[in-house]
Amino acid sequence: MMRRMFTACFLVLTLPALARQNDSLLIRAIADEILVNGKAYENLRVLTKQVGARLSGSPAMYKAEAWGKKTLEQSGAEKVWLQECMVPHWVRGGKDEAYIAGQPKNTPLDVLALGNSVGTGAKGVKAPVVLINSFDELEQRKDEVKGKIVFYNYKFNNKFVKTFNAYGDAGKYRGMGPSRAAKYGAVAVLVRSMSNAADNNPHTGSTVYNDSFPKIPAAAVGLQDADKLAALLNSNKSATVYLKTLANMLPDTIGHNVIGEWKGSEFPEQIITIGGHLDSWDPAEGAHDDGAGCVQSIEVLRALKAIGYKPKRTIRVVLFANEENGLRGGTKYAQEAKAKGEQHYFAMESDEGGFTPRGFGITATPEQLAKIRTWTPLFEPYGVFELEAGYGGADIGPLNQLFKTPLAGLEPDSQRYFDIHHARSDVFEAVNKRELELGAVNMAALIYLVDKYGL
Amino acid sequence: MMRRMFTACFLVLTLPALARQNDSLLIRAIADEILVNGKAYENLRVLTKQVGARLSGSPAMYKAEAWGKKTLEQSGAEKVWLQECMVPHWVRGGKDEAYIAGQPKNTPLDVLALGNSVGTGAKGVKAPVVLINSFDELEQRKDEVKGKIVFYNYKFNNKFVKTFNAYGDAGKYRGMGPSRAAKYGAVAVLVRSMSNAADNNPHTGSTVYNDSFPKIPAAAVGLQDADKLAALLNSNKSATVYLKTLANMLPDTIGHNVIGEWKGSEFPEQIITIGGHLDSWDPAEGAHDDGAGCVQSIEVLRALKAIGYKPKRTIRVVLFANEENGLRGGTKYAQEAKAKGEQHYFAMESDEGGFTPRGFGITATPEQLAKIRTWTPLFEPYGVFELEAGYGGADIGPLNQLFKTPLAGLEPDSQRYFDIHHARSDVFEAVNKRELELGAVNMAALIYLVDKYGL
Repeated sequence: MMRRMFTACFLVLTLPALARQNDSLLIRAIADEILVNGKAYENLRVLTKQVGARLSGSPAMYKAEAWGKKTLEQSGAEKVWLQECMVPHWVRGGKDEAYIAGQPKNTPLDVLALGNSVGTGAKGVKAPVVLINSFDELEQRKDEVKGKIVFYNYKFNNKFVKTFNAYGDAGKYRGMGPSRAAKYGAVAVLVRSMSNAADNNPHTGSTVYNDSFPKIPAAAVGLQDADKLAALLNSNKSATVYLKTLANMLPDTIGHNVIGEWKGSEFPEQIITIGGHLDSWDPAEGAHDDGAGCVQSIEVLRALKAIGYKPKRTIRVVLFANEENGLRGGTKYAQEAKAKGEQHYFAMESDEGGFTPRGFGITATPEQLAKIRTWTPLFEPYGVFELEAGYGGADIGPLNQLFKTPLAGLEPDSQRYFDIHHARSDVFEAVNKRELELGAVNMAALIYLVDKYGL
Repeated sequence: MMRRMFTACFLVLTLPALARQNDSLLIRAIADEILVNGKAYENLRVLTKQVGARLSGSPAMYKAEAWGKKTLEQSGAEKVWLQECMVPHWVRGGKDEAYIAGQPKNTPLDVLALGNSVGTGAKGVKAPVVLINSFDELEQRKDEVKGKIVFYNYKFNNKFVKTFNAYGDAGKYRGMGPSRAAKYGAVAVLVRSMSNAADNNPHTGSTVYNDSFPKIPAAAVGLQDADKLAALLNSNKSATVYLKTLANMLPDTIGHNVIGEWKGSEFPEQIITIGGHLDSWDPAEGAHDDGAGCVQSIEVLRALKAIGYKPKRTIRVVLFANEENGLRGGTKYAQEAKAKGEQHYFAMESDEGGFTPRGFGITATPEQLAKIRTWTPLFEPYGVFELEAGYGGADIGPLNQLFKTPLAGLEPDSQRYFDIHHARSDVFEAVNKRELELGAVNMAALIYLVDKYGL
């Protein structure tokens, strides 16, 4: 009996241990491939330096799609296609300008019109400014707003350790601020940039007009200039600002998701999607946001192929159109999948910058999350300690809504993201090769485990 | 009985839980203070921009000491003093130069003489180059080396996820390479920089001559130039290189550790040391190495005072002299402590860059380590998941040797460190305010826990 018991224990203990060891070795092979032969950084260089900024509807959007198709083909996708989707076509129209009117001279403000905003016309708008620190204050002072420029100066809250929480906290002023000010007769809006950078670059991003109120021009202000303007307004209630933007929303135009597929050997009908978004804001190169996510997703495919892995399920890399000012690509991808009766087994997104990975945010059932969390020790050697319930991602969100697909969003270190997010500083040089690669390593590891063990 | 059992369980479970909650709140107060009112970044700006590079023995070393004394006084140290220690006085002597001799023109190489190395004299040295990839290869080809320049081209191994392991692996070529080549008659040495950067900046650092062999000039080469030279040598065995450095070791001179003290209320004789090193290499500003560690250590003191904490034990912030090319400051601090019969209870060092903190490397008994590890959940909200046995630090190492003092070394994310380490790129602009501050938050948290609960 003792011997038999011993044998039974031995089996129970060692089968999982052996599997764990094999998984560890396979993930080590993925890491070696990406850290030694990685192509993500060079792919990002080409995307950022040869295509550059690629806002929906711009000529560069089409260049980026062609880059995506070619790069996916070169990286081993068996089939690559463009999935048409209509995208908004907002244009900045020229250089945004603003200054504080003064004697003997005006004080320039570094501004960027918000995405989707209307312009001021070529003559611009000049009006007294009301400093508003919160929506509560706006409601209290609504009678002072008519004919004025509202300046929302709500600050990024540095107490949040994870900076996305500060972004979530402050973001409503950019999103809803213009229409809430227009409701009380404001003629334009300035918004303190959603950032904690040490520089003065303004950070653009979408605003969303409420159709019940007039659409008024709106622009983000750099942090140093925001502080300067706030200091002035706190001492002199009659400060006047001039703002000119030539922003304009044109009719929708045709864009595309770029999709690369690798058929599964055992359950080809079960699709695993990995993606980032191909569009970017216009002031810079969209290197972290979200060139990084695109090249990491492509790298997952390339590396798994390079080490000779044969997926059970079908792996699709999707470079989504129009995340920034419409989410049309992600929406279209899920809707067309639904119409075709596809099975969407799992989806992963990288859209929080190409920084050192710290974890994944998981949108899944408690049972699925519990299973994923048992894999945590396999990620720790690669710097990922947090596999937690959280936000999967914007572009794959519709898959969860339509299919209840479990989602995983890569969570890189967030400290530097809002230094460069939607600003001129989001350039290739701000991306570190190793940090970018380690993100792809952890993404590929999770794809491998989900494909092998299921959820 | 049921009631009594319930009460007993309640006490057992809630007393530690309450203590844990209080600790959590106090660490939250530390974090809020540093993330909102932090002075570390501005202190670093002054050190890097107003003092700059501060190699041992240089005029800037004295400026840095004065900065340290003033900053410690302003940050709340009750007593600040300079502890004299003799330091080596190596000078670069001028611009290092090198090229590959060629027709019709020479190809320049970006080089930096290694710290402590001898110069070539004003005429320089010109000799055929032998490409050596490892010490094993050197031994095999020792007969080819006489009269030549040995070029060690051992590469940073990117398979190591933590880059300090790659540094440890490659570092012997910088440290021992010159003397090992001199043993076989080489006239000079070039060493591939200890880095995985994407740029061509050479990375200096100390070399250590073996007195049994002639001292020969030695310089680090930028990675792109190292690749260029290696490619040439692999195709043409007769490549000739010219190297000129005016490096020179002068007699030792007087330097100082800068020490700021805050007396403990309960066990004032038990000293907790927190430090970084004040000296830096000469090509840049020593921002990450180790301005960051200095300002973080000062910030721990400032923040604990600001939140009203009263330490039981005496806290000393030490800005160590001469870590880079001698370790004289750390050695002197421990030796003088021993001579005075001081009690050194705990020591912490930050000397791996001002990047997002990931953990602490602990040098301690298994029991002390186990106690520290029970605190891990208190650090996780601030991004630190690894409290593991590891390297405490160079400057506090002698305290462990002389007193068996337990040590903790801050371990920040290491991916970017060797991009800038000992290179021209180690400047203030490469430091992110939040990353720097989060390091100080975790350092202060561990100091608080050790002071409160003991080890």
